[in-house]
Amino acid sequence: MLTPNSKKRYAIVGAGALGGYYGGLLAKSGLDVHFLTRSDTDHIQSRGLRVDSIHGDFVVSPVQAYSSAHLMPPCDVIIIALKSTQNHLIRELVTPLLKEESVFLVLQNGLHVESEFEAVAGSGQVMGGCCFLCSNKVGPGHIRHMDYGHIAMGAYLGEDGKSPAVSQSIQNEIHRDFLEAGIRTELVENLQYSRWKKLMWNIPFNGLSVAMNAPTDKVMTSPAARQLAIDLMVETQASAKVCGIEIADKEIEQMIAYTDSMVPYDSSMRLDFLAGRTMEIEAIVGRPLREAKRRGFVPKKIEMLYQQLCFLQK
Amino acid sequence: MLTPNSKKRYAIVGAGALGGYYGGLLAKSGLDVHFLTRSDTDHIQSRGLRVDSIHGDFVVSPVQAYSSAHLMPPCDVIIIALKSTQNHLIRELVTPLLKEESVFLVLQNGLHVESEFEAVAGSGQVMGGCCFLCSNKVGPGHIRHMDYGHIAMGAYLGEDGKSPAVSQSIQNEIHRDFLEAGIRTELVENLQYSRWKKLMWNIPFNGLSVAMNAPTDKVMTSPAARQLAIDLMVETQASAKVCGIEIADKEIEQMIAYTDSMVPYDSSMRLDFLAGRTMEIEAIVGRPLREAKRRGFVPKKIEMLYQQLCFLQK
Repeated sequence: MLTPNSKKRYAIVGAGALGGYYGGLLAKSGLDVHFLTRSDTDHIQSRGLRVDSIHGDFVVSPVQAYSSAHLMPPCDVIIIALKSTQNHLIRELVTPLLKEESVFLVLQNGLHVESEFEAVAGSGQVMGGCCFLCSNKVGPGHIRHMDYGHIAMGAYLGEDGKSPAVSQSIQNEIHRDFLEAGIRTELVENLQYSRWKKLMWNIPFNGLSVAMNAPTDKVMTSPAARQLAIDLMVETQASAKVCGIEIADKEIEQMIAYTDSMVPYDSSMRLDFLAGRTMEIEAIVGRPLREAKRRGFVPKKIEMLYQQLCFLQK
Repeated sequence: MLTPNSKKRYAIVGAGALGGYYGGLLAKSGLDVHFLTRSDTDHIQSRGLRVDSIHGDFVVSPVQAYSSAHLMPPCDVIIIALKSTQNHLIRELVTPLLKEESVFLVLQNGLHVESEFEAVAGSGQVMGGCCFLCSNKVGPGHIRHMDYGHIAMGAYLGEDGKSPAVSQSIQNEIHRDFLEAGIRTELVENLQYSRWKKLMWNIPFNGLSVAMNAPTDKVMTSPAARQLAIDLMVETQASAKVCGIEIADKEIEQMIAYTDSMVPYDSSMRLDFLAGRTMEIEAIVGRPLREAKRRGFVPKKIEMLYQQLCFLQK
C-alpha cells in the first residue's frame, strides 16, 4: 500500500464531499497526494482524513494538507474538486501548483467548466470528469460516502472542440492510478457526450428541485412535474444535438426508469439553495442554454428554468 | 333610490368580494336584486350587506338573500360571481333561477368560463365580463373595496365563436342598469379580445405569483423574472393571435408600465394558494394553453407554468 502506483504527484483542490472522497482513496493507495484545504487544514494535518464508505471505512494519516497553494509543491495532476461557482477565483488560487507539464482534471458539474483552467494551463493540458457520487462532508476531515462513485473522464478539447487533447499516455496513467485506487473510472473519448448526458439529468432534477422546491420523488410522482422533467430532458437532448452531440432516445427512457427507482434525493443545487449558498446555475443551466442559443436553438423551458433559478438565487 | 331603473330582476350568485360589491351597488340603486349566498345568509338577512368603499361606504338593508336557489324567484339576469373552479357544480345550482329569456352574465377570470352556462341556458343567452376590481370579503356580509371596479362586458359567442349574441337591447339594458348603479361599465363588441387582454396580465402575474412565490413587485424588480413575465405576455399575445385575436405590442408596453407603478399586489391565485384553496389554473392558464395548442401553436413557457401550477396545486 505504500508503493506508489505512479510517479505522478497529485494536488486535490478542495477536501469536501468529492475531493475528500476521491483524494482519500488516491492517498490511501500510496500515491503522492497533496490537499489544498480550507477551514479544516489543522484538523486534517493532526488527525488525518476519515472516510466512512459503503465500501469500507478508512482513515488516511498523515495527510499532506495545506492552507495555501504557495506552501505546496508543483504537481503533475491538479484535481479541481470545488464547486464551479468560484472557478474565476480558483484559477488564480492554483497557479502556484503549475509546472510545465501539469494537467488539470476538473471534476465538476456542468458544461465547459474546464475553460477557466485551459486559460491557465494552456490548451492540451486539461481533462474533465463527470462524477456520479453520493457523499457528504459531515465534519472537519470527515467524509461520508453513501452511494455510487463512478467517474467518466476524458480530454477537454476547448470551447470550439479544436484544442489538442492531453496525451494519451498521460490520460492512461491517470486512469490507471484511479483504477488502482479502487475508483470505478472510465476513460471516454468524447467528454462532451458524457457532459451533456449528465446534464440531461442535472438540468431537470437539479433545476426543478429548487424551482419547485421538490426532491426527485415528488417530481416523479406528480404527472405534471414528471412530464415537465421529461420535456426538459428532451430539450437538453435537442440542445446537445445542435452542439454536435447525439444522445439516443433510449438514454432518456433509462434515466427516467433510473430516477423512478432512486431513493428520494436532495440535489446538490437544492442543498446549496437551502443553505443560502451560490448555486451552480451557470455551469448546469446557463452555459448549456447559451451554447444552444448561439447555434440558433432556443430551449424555451430550459430558458424559463434558468430565469426562475436566477430569480431565486437573488 | 327606490325607483327601479329597469324592470329586470337580477340574481347574484355569490356574495363574496366581487358579488357583494357589484350586487350591493345594483341593489342600492333600487334594482330588484336577489343574492344566492353561502355561509352568511342569516347575517345578511338580519343585518344587510355592508360595503366599505373608496367611493363611499354604504349598507344595503333589507337584502333579499337566500341559502338555496330553490327559494329564489326566476330571474332575468343571473350574475355569476363565484370563482370558476366550481363551474361544473354551479351550473346545476342555478337552474332553478332560469326562465325562458334568462341571461347569464359571467363575471369570472379566464377563457371560455361562460361555456358551462351556455350549456344550461342555450346559446344566445350568455354574456361575460372582465372585472378590474380590487376588493376583499372581510367578514360576514362585509366587503371592503380598495381600488378599481371597471367592467368590460359583452356577448359570449360560444367556443367556436358562432353562437348568436344576446340581443343588443338586452345588452343595452343591463349596461344601463350597471352605469346607473355607479359601476364603470363598458359594453364591448369583442368579448374574447377583452378576455385575452386580461389573460396577458393574469397568466404571468397570477401564475408567477404562485410558481415563484412572489408578489408583482418582486417579479418586476428581478431582471430575470421581469423578462420571464414579458416572455409569458408575448406568448399569450401569440396564443391570442392563433385564436383570431390581435393584440397590439403597445398593450404589452402599457401593461408593463402599469405593473411597474402598482403597489405590491398579491394575486387572487396566490391568495387561493396560500389559503390552500383550489386555484383557477384551468380558466386562467390551462384553457388558453389548450386553445393555442389545438390551433398548432405551443406556448412553451405557458405550458411549463401550467405544469408547475398543477404540481403545486396538489
